[in-house]
Amino acid sequence: MVDRPPEQERPEENPPQEQVGVGIDTSAEGSLVLPEELISSIHEALAAGDVQQAEVLVHALHPADAADILEILSADERTLLVEILGATIDPEVLSHLEPTIREEVLEQLGAENLARVLMHLDSDDAVEIFEDLEEDAQQHILSALPLAYRHILQEGLSYPEDSAGRLMAREFVAIPQSWTIGQTIDYLRAAEDLPDIFYDLYVVNPKHKPVGIIPLSRAIGARRPEKLGDLMDQELRTIPLTMDQEDVAYIFRQYGLASAPVVDAAGRLVGTITVDDVVLVIEEEAEEDIMKLAGVAETDLYDAAIDTAKARFTWLLLNLGTAVLASLVIGLFSGTIEKVVALAVLMPIVASMGGNAGTQTLTVAVRAIAMRDLGPWNALRFVGKEVIVGAANGVIFALVMGLVAWLWFDSAMIGLIIGVAMVLNLVVAALFGTLIPLGLERLKIDPAVASSVFLTTVTDVVGFLAFLGLAALMLT
Amino acid sequence: MVDRPPEQERPEENPPQEQVGVGIDTSAEGSLVLPEELISSIHEALAAGDVQQAEVLVHALHPADAADILEILSADERTLLVEILGATIDPEVLSHLEPTIREEVLEQLGAENLARVLMHLDSDDAVEIFEDLEEDAQQHILSALPLAYRHILQEGLSYPEDSAGRLMAREFVAIPQSWTIGQTIDYLRAAEDLPDIFYDLYVVNPKHKPVGIIPLSRAIGARRPEKLGDLMDQELRTIPLTMDQEDVAYIFRQYGLASAPVVDAAGRLVGTITVDDVVLVIEEEAEEDIMKLAGVAETDLYDAAIDTAKARFTWLLLNLGTAVLASLVIGLFSGTIEKVVALAVLMPIVASMGGNAGTQTLTVAVRAIAMRDLGPWNALRFVGKEVIVGAANGVIFALVMGLVAWLWFDSAMIGLIIGVAMVLNLVVAALFGTLIPLGLERLKIDPAVASSVFLTTVTDVVGFLAFLGLAALMLT
Repeated sequence: MVDRPPEQERPEENPPQEQVGVGIDTSAEGSLVLPEELISSIHEALAAGDVQQAEVLVHALHPADAADILEILSADERTLLVEILGATIDPEVLSHLEPTIREEVLEQLGAENLARVLMHLDSDDAVEIFEDLEEDAQQHILSALPLAYRHILQEGLSYPEDSAGRLMAREFVAIPQSWTIGQTIDYLRAAEDLPDIFYDLYVVNPKHKPVGIIPLSRAIGARRPEKLGDLMDQELRTIPLTMDQEDVAYIFRQYGLASAPVVDAAGRLVGTITVDDVVLVIEEEAEEDIMKLAGVAETDLYDAAIDTAKARFTWLLLNLGTAVLASLVIGLFSGTIEKVVALAVLMPIVASMGGNAGTQTLTVAVRAIAMRDLGPWNALRFVGKEVIVGAANGVIFALVMGLVAWLWFDSAMIGLIIGVAMVLNLVVAALFGTLIPLGLERLKIDPAVASSVFLTTVTDVVGFLAFLGLAALMLT
Repeated sequence: MVDRPPEQERPEENPPQEQVGVGIDTSAEGSLVLPEELISSIHEALAAGDVQQAEVLVHALHPADAADILEILSADERTLLVEILGATIDPEVLSHLEPTIREEVLEQLGAENLARVLMHLDSDDAVEIFEDLEEDAQQHILSALPLAYRHILQEGLSYPEDSAGRLMAREFVAIPQSWTIGQTIDYLRAAEDLPDIFYDLYVVNPKHKPVGIIPLSRAIGARRPEKLGDLMDQELRTIPLTMDQEDVAYIFRQYGLASAPVVDAAGRLVGTITVDDVVLVIEEEAEEDIMKLAGVAETDLYDAAIDTAKARFTWLLLNLGTAVLASLVIGLFSGTIEKVVALAVLMPIVASMGGNAGTQTLTVAVRAIAMRDLGPWNALRFVGKEVIVGAANGVIFALVMGLVAWLWFDSAMIGLIIGVAMVLNLVVAALFGTLIPLGLERLKIDPAVASSVFLTTVTDVVGFLAFLGLAALMLT
């Protein structure tokens, strides 16, 4: 800390006078979302058919904001706007669109416009857009592209989905180990085909294998005669082409990287992944976990109602199966319920508490597994702790609910039964809330997808079975 | 795209020969988590009291990995290891620890070691550690620190929690607008107190207000006589000190930034936020949403069993309230249930399906609100779509379950009743699954925290009420 306070960069100065900020003002409350007036203006321009006004408004926006506008508009308005923008649409806007909306826009743009758009994007963004296209749309566009671009798209697609190969850009700066800073800076000044933005220089040996990395902030402060070999960090994290993007994100996060070199099977430098891509991956992975736990698709918000309904149907059907199974358990005890109707009143409580407590455990487990905080090394300790927590809360809620049930139905026995069932179900919930995701992970099934259906099945069945079973034994 | 294929940086070369990779090998399957042998070796060294071996093993690790080791060890092993490392512990290790574990370690280290640790960290990391300490521990450490450091910690703490002021580092590079690239590079070469890593040069006017930003990759490729004022991007996103970190993350994500200048109320440059800090914020925010939806604390995994049990208790108590409310509804119809015990068997199905369908809607809404994809501008369309989806699936599941119930209990009437109740509850689930989070957001309450309790209350009550109410009307 502050062994380097930037004093000389902060000249003493007069007290600040009134002066408006430069650039985009992000200081006002609520200015972070697109201003409603802007959205209204665009709605109005489109409704009035004021082509020029709509174009001016959208072109003034950052591509990411323009993409948000396209997402916000109704399908008809969007079609109109894309028609207006046509060939002048900023290629960057497309890479910021949600996949569902993008598909719609791409279809409207047509192969020729699309080929132009792809040629103006970085290779990673171009591949990302290209991979979502239909087979024959892909062929159409490929034939409209110069050979070099065609090759890059095809190569990009040859890597597995969600791999480093798809994520990487093919534009990077690699410098021979023997060069000096002076040579390097002269080269960079003369080069006309540098990437727009890069954060590190990759140092390579004669076989084009990365041997070190130099952050630009170190390079720019170094003296001309210094050798790259002396300045570079040798501890560099190379990313194999086939590495899963989730693992890439882990490495960036764990080691705080700005960029990392991607290497082929022979260890040669073939691309670079930068932190801005990783930010999107991290968000996507977190999104996936949340969505899968509830059984919805990631694109849900932007899908048409019919697609959303279809996508959610499977999950609900699974849950219906679970619910029917629980009903079958209840059905076993209809005789008992007929005699003591209080049981029907109380029984959902035991199942519901088990479900909620289990979901707490499950969520912690799923997230910890995804973040690599939970694995074989601490699984046993985690299960042990969760069972203790389940038992502790089980006993407390058993006392609370036992008392309530006793007073409500004037029967100590019913109070006792619901209490015992409660402890039992909360311990079972803890046990399965940990074992289900750990087991799925070991079977290489994503714990976020399937865990919660299994869990509710267990807590429902055990909840009803324990409560009604005990009642059948002790009340009749 | 590839209007700049880096051909000249890729010399043609011989086919690759056998050669081991340089640096840390991340290519082997599963090498991303700490190798189990390493963990075992540390366990063994600690058990055998082999102080030197343990120290060697841990010091060889990246601070982020060393922090992971400390988190994995049992409490006793951790105490022993911290004792061994003592004053030689890498300050960076502390900033990578989970808060719960860090608190434990800090306590053991004592004020004097801590003061030393804080002085070696960047100001943002130091403030982050310092803010979690108890009041008197803070006083202790402040008195052990030189005045300049003390001032920085106190200033950091004066900003609201989770604000840009807490997140920013005070070390940045600001250059007057009138300088040339040559002057700037000479200055950077001479300066001895530059930040370790920076990605952009901030260009300031004489009042020390940021007027532009130059990515280092542009600066290093520019010629010496070029003026900063001509090279800089004027469209810069300045972050006010008081901005919430969630908004900061949004700006970085939306505009793909590597760093952004932080300004005080007068618009003067006071600090910088870099993307590596934002990556952690993004992850933290996603984590928060997942955890809050299930009613667990973010630190849950590392909390002691007793703290976890306490933290989860409130949520379960709320859910017990909900469950009891639902039971009261059932209680209203005990007469009907006594006559037709099939109702007790079937009733959890309606409530459960409503809960699941509602949770799907709710999850999409909560996440979309957090990502600023859902707001007043499209709320109405979203609610409309969800109701359509709920109705569509409601009708399908009504047919399925109606048929099942009819066959099971040989009563068309019971089939009809459960069908109608199902449609009703799924539409209500869709309606409240959207309106609850949107309403909470408007009231400035975090939708992730409270939404799901409200929702289950509604789907349980409506589910039982619709099903049993219809049955009471039509069966008796």
